[in-house]
Amino acid sequence: MYKLVLIRHGESTWNLENRFTGWTDVELTDTGVAQARAAGALLKAEGFEFDVAYTSVLKRAIWTLWHCLDAMDRTWLPVVKDWRLNERHYGGLQGLNKADMAKQYGDEQVLIWRRSYDTPPPPLEATDLRGQRQDVRYAKLKPEQVPLTECLKDTVARVLPCWDEVLAPAIRSGQRVVLAAHGNSIRALVKYLDGISDADIVGLNIPNGIPLVYELDANLKPIKSYYLGDAEAAAKAAAAVASQGKA
Amino acid sequence: MYKLVLIRHGESTWNLENRFTGWTDVELTDTGVAQARAAGALLKAEGFEFDVAYTSVLKRAIWTLWHCLDAMDRTWLPVVKDWRLNERHYGGLQGLNKADMAKQYGDEQVLIWRRSYDTPPPPLEATDLRGQRQDVRYAKLKPEQVPLTECLKDTVARVLPCWDEVLAPAIRSGQRVVLAAHGNSIRALVKYLDGISDADIVGLNIPNGIPLVYELDANLKPIKSYYLGDAEAAAKAAAAVASQGKA
Repeated sequence: MYKLVLIRHGESTWNLENRFTGWTDVELTDTGVAQARAAGALLKAEGFEFDVAYTSVLKRAIWTLWHCLDAMDRTWLPVVKDWRLNERHYGGLQGLNKADMAKQYGDEQVLIWRRSYDTPPPPLEATDLRGQRQDVRYAKLKPEQVPLTECLKDTVARVLPCWDEVLAPAIRSGQRVVLAAHGNSIRALVKYLDGISDADIVGLNIPNGIPLVYELDANLKPIKSYYLGDAEAAAKAAAAVASQGKA
Repeated sequence: MYKLVLIRHGESTWNLENRFTGWTDVELTDTGVAQARAAGALLKAEGFEFDVAYTSVLKRAIWTLWHCLDAMDRTWLPVVKDWRLNERHYGGLQGLNKADMAKQYGDEQVLIWRRSYDTPPPPLEATDLRGQRQDVRYAKLKPEQVPLTECLKDTVARVLPCWDEVLAPAIRSGQRVVLAAHGNSIRALVKYLDGISDADIVGLNIPNGIPLVYELDANLKPIKSYYLGDAEAAAKAAAAVASQGKA
């Protein structure tokens, strides 16, 4: 049996400002740092050990992992950063306030943009400076690999190759894996692992900074999964995520 | 022509307490964090770009690199941690105060322990908890690869394979390399690169947190090297390192 631990980054400045973030590279707040360190302290207290850590190329996830590893006294573990673990690209909504958009377009439209499986938000222009086509960290990708917007289906389509090529082989080889990523890249993984339907994934929310533990069988199918620590607090935090898009 | 940037970690808690540190995994002070961020800001202001970063498995170097990369807005760069870039192992002196030792054994003896090329300090017992034979991060090494003490010659003997196998191939392949490490692992590299004699290396000191730039020719031989920023401040900081072992 294998264990895999997923952690959504701690609170970011744009979580706090209730803005659509996507691939915009915003920082953790002090609360976010504290959440990341608490996640590490909890993992350490529960006796978790890892051989390798994965994260995205966005600093709110990277710093979450760094603080988590430091709190575990495991700064020295290898860390692999993969752009395919990035948050869902939020297209033309990046930088805009979720509640403002709900007032302007209605709660329902914002819920569609936030949670529809296959309807992406309006795309950015390729030259828009809120986008990432000019960002040096993606310079080695083909332009079409750097999204101008994404629905969750698009995110799934880039996260799963990372699972197949990187994460699953590491786990199968016996490496104990921790992964710090984002609300929607983790939703993409959870959808795949738990076989959640396109319709049901709309209702799934991932709270910030709480380790989500998967116990996997020899075929990497989940035996069970659970949030580490206070289950009620995790449920409340997930519910708060769900309500962010309301006017 | 290639560029290579070496950075000794920022001030650590045991630098501040003037204690022999070696492989003991102590933290940066607030000053050390500020030095690391200043190094990153300076590299950014001078237009340095990197493709890959290397560091040791000790957190004062790791955090120095992390803060440096963050100040450059380059948290997403790949980071490789290699135990062979660790500080020189200080054996039985680890944890002891440099000035106390100088009072007890004399300035000359401490200078020999600190700077003699081939006289190591007294070794730790393999079971001594101040040592690293029980440390999980070295569990995959053979016991004899985890030192009980080292002179600089011993440090050179483990740093150079890292140069030959990892750093030099990366540089030759065109990757722009930054490396955050330690006073003596950097002295080992500088001795090799600049062809400094066993006698003359005694007088070479590396200041904390100041980027040391090497410009290398096609054979990786130095064309020139210099500290980035205020040359006088770098010289003063190096002189301060030299005087740490006096009663």
